[in-house]
Amino acid sequence: MTRKLIENINPHEITIATLCSHTSLQIFHGARIEGFKTLGITVGKPPRFYDAYPGAKPDEFLVLENHKELLQHAEELREKNTIIVPHGSLVEYMGAVNYLNLEVPVFGNRRVLEWESDRKKSRQWLESAGIPMPEEITDPADIASPVIVKYYGAKGGKGFFIAKDHSDFEKQVDSTQPYTIQRFVHGTRYYFHYFYSPITSKGYTLSKGSLEMLGIDKRIESNVDEIFRAHGTLIEPTFVVTGNMPLVIRESLLPEVFEMGERVVEKSIEMFGGMTGPFCLETVLTDKLEFKVFEISARIVAGTNLFPAGSPYTEYTGHNISMGRRIALEIKRAVELNKLEEVLS
Amino acid sequence: MTRKLIENINPHEITIATLCSHTSLQIFHGARIEGFKTLGITVGKPPRFYDAYPGAKPDEFLVLENHKELLQHAEELREKNTIIVPHGSLVEYMGAVNYLNLEVPVFGNRRVLEWESDRKKSRQWLESAGIPMPEEITDPADIASPVIVKYYGAKGGKGFFIAKDHSDFEKQVDSTQPYTIQRFVHGTRYYFHYFYSPITSKGYTLSKGSLEMLGIDKRIESNVDEIFRAHGTLIEPTFVVTGNMPLVIRESLLPEVFEMGERVVEKSIEMFGGMTGPFCLETVLTDKLEFKVFEISARIVAGTNLFPAGSPYTEYTGHNISMGRRIALEIKRAVELNKLEEVLS
Amino acid sequence: MTRKLIENINPHEITIATLCSHTSLQIFHGARIEGFKTLGITVGKPPRFYDAYPGAKPDEFLVLENHKELLQHAEELREKNTIIVPHGSLVEYMGAVNYLNLEVPVFGNRRVLEWESDRKKSRQWLESAGIPMPEEITDPADIASPVIVKYYGAKGGKGFFIAKDHSDFEKQVDSTQPYTIQRFVHGTRYYFHYFYSPITSKGYTLSKGSLEMLGIDKRIESNVDEIFRAHGTLIEPTFVVTGNMPLVIRESLLPEVFEMGERVVEKSIEMFGGMTGPFCLETVLTDKLEFKVFEISARIVAGTNLFPAGSPYTEYTGHNISMGRRIALEIKRAVELNKLEEVLS
Repeated sequence: MTRKLIENINPHEITIATLCSHTSLQIFHGARIEGFKTLGITVGKPPRFYDAYPGAKPDEFLVLENHKELLQHAEELREKNTIIVPHGSLVEYMGAVNYLNLEVPVFGNRRVLEWESDRKKSRQWLESAGIPMPEEITDPADIASPVIVKYYGAKGGKGFFIAKDHSDFEKQVDSTQPYTIQRFVHGTRYYFHYFYSPITSKGYTLSKGSLEMLGIDKRIESNVDEIFRAHGTLIEPTFVVTGNMPLVIRESLLPEVFEMGERVVEKSIEMFGGMTGPFCLETVLTDKLEFKVFEISARIVAGTNLFPAGSPYTEYTGHNISMGRRIALEIKRAVELNKLEEVLS
Repeated sequence: MTRKLIENINPHEITIATLCSHTSLQIFHGARIEGFKTLGITVGKPPRFYDAYPGAKPDEFLVLENHKELLQHAEELREKNTIIVPHGSLVEYMGAVNYLNLEVPVFGNRRVLEWESDRKKSRQWLESAGIPMPEEITDPADIASPVIVKYYGAKGGKGFFIAKDHSDFEKQVDSTQPYTIQRFVHGTRYYFHYFYSPITSKGYTLSKGSLEMLGIDKRIESNVDEIFRAHGTLIEPTFVVTGNMPLVIRESLLPEVFEMGERVVEKSIEMFGGMTGPFCLETVLTDKLEFKVFEISARIVAGTNLFPAGSPYTEYTGHNISMGRRIALEIKRAVELNKLEEVLS
Repeated sequence: MTRKLIENINPHEITIATLCSHTSLQIFHGARIEGFKTLGITVGKPPRFYDAYPGAKPDEFLVLENHKELLQHAEELREKNTIIVPHGSLVEYMGAVNYLNLEVPVFGNRRVLEWESDRKKSRQWLESAGIPMPEEITDPADIASPVIVKYYGAKGGKGFFIAKDHSDFEKQVDSTQPYTIQRFVHGTRYYFHYFYSPITSKGYTLSKGSLEMLGIDKRIESNVDEIFRAHGTLIEPTFVVTGNMPLVIRESLLPEVFEMGERVVEKSIEMFGGMTGPFCLETVLTDKLEFKVFEISARIVAGTNLFPAGSPYTEYTGHNISMGRRIALEIKRAVELNKLEEVLS
């Protein structure tokens, strides 16, 4: 299917589209600056906030009644030479199957979804790539020190909880849902915004293409990230993502940051044809300066919203731009090199 | 009074003045870039730090012996076609009555002060605008879960305390001062930097004029924001503001962020003729992704000091500038449109 | 020695060199923009991450087998008219004696090292300059309230611990190492990035030269800075620096921030000929808005990595640049004024 979809794109009339949420401001803003038309997909009336941000307002809107309805607009989108830039909310709201079957070209490799969204498979991918991860505990009876419990498919950290020991686990767990148990890693969190280009031969080169690291953030989770302010009052921590703050990391750790990104990409090439474009390794850095990667996001993450005009790292790259604009730039370069097939699916 | 003050301004010779503190660097910097003369009001010798920041050093200083003396310089200031940009420290140090009676044009609507500075009236304003606020507890005997107690007129969080229950409240309260008791809301804080322009017809339009959201910060309070570092040592949290850090919020919450700002402005138009220029809603975002607005500041807040050259949000507005410069730009546009009366009081 | 080293520099062929770590990206980036050649000193193969940041990649590398080998390359470096920009990792890895004896010109005054690296001497310097510091406790039996214990020469906060009282101290201390005991100060931390130029007569002028404050950060320490997330699980806090986050401080405190910097520089001129270039005062700001300075770094600190294109403060300085580029600019100005001797040693 895909090859045909891509061949039919008129490379001089491309429209970049995404769902009006998550990271859409930077995606539309970047696409416009790189010369593309833009289309905002929205359920119900288009959000009015774009009026306050005219530099990031899409040229037009496709108004749906529900997310799944997008499937029925595939032909219309193809006629507009649309490339969809997927983000976490788009994939979540459409549902994996619908997303995979959407007959519109998508930036990046759709197949990564099956490896990323299943906690077992993502662990298999990362561990086979030599990425250090928090230990997984398969039998709750083995919980002897603090763990964090995550439900499958829980979005934005919803329902995650910490258990000190086995009995604490039993008190809190909802056994009707599948979950994983990870040893709780003490340290400070760093979320790295990588970009893998299969069509660039300069820079930090891999077996094919090259790797960039364009910024770092830390997610802000409610209520856990201000739980200490409720001094002396006992409440249970919750882990719902509400926003992001900017960080830099010790420069001496950059070699390892790049090596981790490199290993993940190389393994993705081997396993499922590669992971084009933005991805994020979500890490805890311990007081031994060891990383533990607790999750991977295989597309643009919301932490990049911190850097619409560049980050402390992009200043050095030669393109001091947002991740959204980096995506648009990649599409533009692929057009110039006649390599759209390598960055779309 | 006001109309006459404003009519007498020579719009081609405007001087922008403020007290040398709080957000004065960005106010002077922005005013200078937009082509205005600048005047720094200072008690005692002008601060030397402007010498290190020549781009933000006012053209001249008005040196007072005390803040109230400013009243006596009204004529001199009017002769210089001065517009005063008020900030929290200016209003606090002059005192409300003196500020309201100052016979010099002021940016924004002075009348907002009476609604903002009284905790009862600000609650009336916000609640009638449909803004969700932390529950207020009127009888201390009703304190059954953690609350935060705030003294009236306490500046920068001074004296605020948390009480777990009624007896804890009685132990800590200073009953000689008026106070309010708010239910303590667990979550993460976001402070939104809005700008309401009554003279702009483009953008996120309101019943009259338009609304912008130019940035977000989180206040840093001492000692509570690092209280967890004193691990295992028991101290009482305090809430004195010492600075600010930058944040972004989940993009999916922007519609609500704008709606809250919109409702507050519309209600201000209805109640007291509107709230022109910068204002800030100070919120806690819970793990249910519900905002609770615990305070409003009806002028430029110090958190905007993070963004002298633009924020992660201004990049998209078409004017990638500080709040201080946004104010100067508003005055410049009002001059061009012959609408100074609508932005001054 | 030094005078001769400096006289022999061909000011039109200067190469700026540093060790490939810590703050090297901004040092190379800034040097290149200001027109200098750049040389990266590395033990083993050059780090590949520079390939991802071509704007900050040194023109060439000097590859060593170990850090001390640098001494043997002095002549080669002098032939290239090299000026070494020292940072914490370079000084630490070479060792103080080797660094002091290195026969290559160094940016700044090498003599500051002896005052900075010895906790007794740095306290003598700061206290004689009238800088408020946390109280030192000389007899562990006097520990009656929480203290922080720091081993001499411990790098990046390694091994630091908090003790609540004398017996808690005895349980944790490693008596085989020398240490200092400081009263634990409750508050929020601010790290100020100063720059002292002995050759600039404009700006915030001192007895000789002038002072700038180019940015503020807060260090992120693992595990202490997220220790509260491990809710209800008891672990000991550790203080290993992993990165940095950006902050601004209340503008009303800037006079004191500059006065502290001024006093430290003036005292350094009196004691050991001055401290040229970047330095950092590392402070806790209490809820009484009093600073306590717990440490000084007498060269570029890693927190400046947050601001490769300028900080919330540099926007006002007239040079909206990184600390690395500020160093290069100082060298360039010294060349123009024929005053290299005043900024090198």
